[in-house]
Amino acid sequence: MITKMADLPTPALIVDAQALTDNIATMAAALPGDRLRPHVKAHKCTSLARLQEQAGHRNFTCATIRECEGMVAAGLGHDLLLGNEVLDARRIGALVAAGARVSVAVDSPQTIEAAAAGGVREVLIDVNVGLPRCGCQPADAGPLAELARQQGLEVRGVMGYEGHVVGLEDGGERERQCRTSMELLVAAHADVGGELVSAGGTGTYACNTWASEIQAGSYALMDVAYGRLGLPFRQAVFVLATVVSSAPEWSVADAGLKTMGMDHGNPEIEGETVWFCSDEHTTFSPPMAVGEKVRLVPGHVDPTMAYHERLYLCSGADVVDVWPVDLRGW
Amino acid sequence: MITKMADLPTPALIVDAQALTDNIATMAAALPGDRLRPHVKAHKCTSLARLQEQAGHRNFTCATIRECEGMVAAGLGHDLLLGNEVLDARRIGALVAAGARVSVAVDSPQTIEAAAAGGVREVLIDVNVGLPRCGCQPADAGPLAELARQQGLEVRGVMGYEGHVVGLEDGGERERQCRTSMELLVAAHADVGGELVSAGGTGTYACNTWASEIQAGSYALMDVAYGRLGLPFRQAVFVLATVVSSAPEWSVADAGLKTMGMDHGNPEIEGETVWFCSDEHTTFSPPMAVGEKVRLVPGHVDPTMAYHERLYLCSGADVVDVWPVDLRGW
Repeated sequence: MITKMADLPTPALIVDAQALTDNIATMAAALPGDRLRPHVKAHKCTSLARLQEQAGHRNFTCATIRECEGMVAAGLGHDLLLGNEVLDARRIGALVAAGARVSVAVDSPQTIEAAAAGGVREVLIDVNVGLPRCGCQPADAGPLAELARQQGLEVRGVMGYEGHVVGLEDGGERERQCRTSMELLVAAHADVGGELVSAGGTGTYACNTWASEIQAGSYALMDVAYGRLGLPFRQAVFVLATVVSSAPEWSVADAGLKTMGMDHGNPEIEGETVWFCSDEHTTFSPPMAVGEKVRLVPGHVDPTMAYHERLYLCSGADVVDVWPVDLRGW
Repeated sequence: MITKMADLPTPALIVDAQALTDNIATMAAALPGDRLRPHVKAHKCTSLARLQEQAGHRNFTCATIRECEGMVAAGLGHDLLLGNEVLDARRIGALVAAGARVSVAVDSPQTIEAAAAGGVREVLIDVNVGLPRCGCQPADAGPLAELARQQGLEVRGVMGYEGHVVGLEDGGERERQCRTSMELLVAAHADVGGELVSAGGTGTYACNTWASEIQAGSYALMDVAYGRLGLPFRQAVFVLATVVSSAPEWSVADAGLKTMGMDHGNPEIEGETVWFCSDEHTTFSPPMAVGEKVRLVPGHVDPTMAYHERLYLCSGADVVDVWPVDLRGW
């Protein structure tokens, strides 16, 4: 058992236990209990989800069937929402038949049909609120709810993700666009009925006062992109790397493209300028001595987690626990 | 056992068996036997490496210790090169002690010391040939070789990766810059000695006539970036996805940032325009019907493979084999 961070083989995904604890506490104070439905897609780790549950959040959002299965297996299946469309719902039906509560997002006759055929009992109508992705047109929400009820499904309400808004760096603009999106969702909810209006993310958790529950996930671990928004959460996840090569003008750390999601741009290293990442390396300056350790802050947390089998929970220089990133895959 | 591609749960990593076979045969004809030292970092799959071995290539390049361990475990440890610097070589030393042949790249006194201390017996001097990454300055290669020999290590030659050249779309420019890089490497080799001059990649496999062996890997599966170079290899790997949502102006497939490396940009879908990828989705147009399948061509193959537990080898509409992507992790 490795107990010192400096002894970890690199690259290694490390989580600052205190920052994680603080982030979870800050969110639980702002959105207590069922006001938050933490999204597990941002960390893919049932051990971390358990901390969120201990902070009072019993209900979770999942993005994949595998995440639902893993959460149920970990005893965290009290009330799961698969906030995503699926055309083969049989594995969800199996979870429901075994006693878990799993609701599924639907946005079309085909996904309603798939839910009913697969043994799902409860759905939310997914409404498009401005992001060009999933969700029905708002005017179709009521008729789809009716169709779902005709198929014997319980309609618990609506969901609508303002994903085009959560990352806006201008806080005022984020609030304005959040309002525009949520007015669409609230109107659709009036047509649909049910108790849930599920929406939001880490960027809008404070200003989205229309949703009955917020689906934030990234707040627990954070990343470069969310770090720019001035939110009261601090960076908790890093990729630990070793400087394996050093030149007069740069150094090279042994963590690259297979350790971090790159769609939000390069990682950051405190006090250093990152030049570029390649498959196994990150080049940066000013140079450091070969053998030194660096901590990279990933640009985007979700696709970073999906690369790692495990995370090392650290307190100062100590490794205090090892958690499997057990919700990966499909 | 799923035998039809259409029945695979999506997202799924699929490989066109014929394209793979053709790519391997084309490369083996151009660089037969030991002229190619295939790089396994591009596919991370021992079943695929075995096809390369059957095509005549007995020696392989690895990027991580885990890749070396996996190749040895699969009986493919005849002559492995860890083409990367490490500061803890004990796991490599254990492979060597157990009878595998694993040489390691070194570019500094520290990495030489680590190799000797870890039980490595053979090294290559890694020389920087223009890419700001690993490799010593060319003038330091001779003295480092001497240092390695003083430490009891066998120096098999040099390696130098022209990674800044392999992706240049202008073929003439690629050849010119390859020559510039390789002249540095050949000069360093004169100072170092040994039988190996190891270099090159898929983009320079044909024009790099200075190296004694080429480390190409991407040619087997290919990606969007390499597809632009006019090489005689065709796209063999795809992410299969299902259209889960459709709007009047776009559709959404269920494969996103956690299925594909994004550092080379968006994936491509034949006949469609990709708008953007998010964690679990790709939005594209013109729209398709919900339930249709699409094949995404990843922008960059290496970090794509690292996301998937397995690949499905397909022939037409049939799944003919399932291969674990067994060299992932560290």
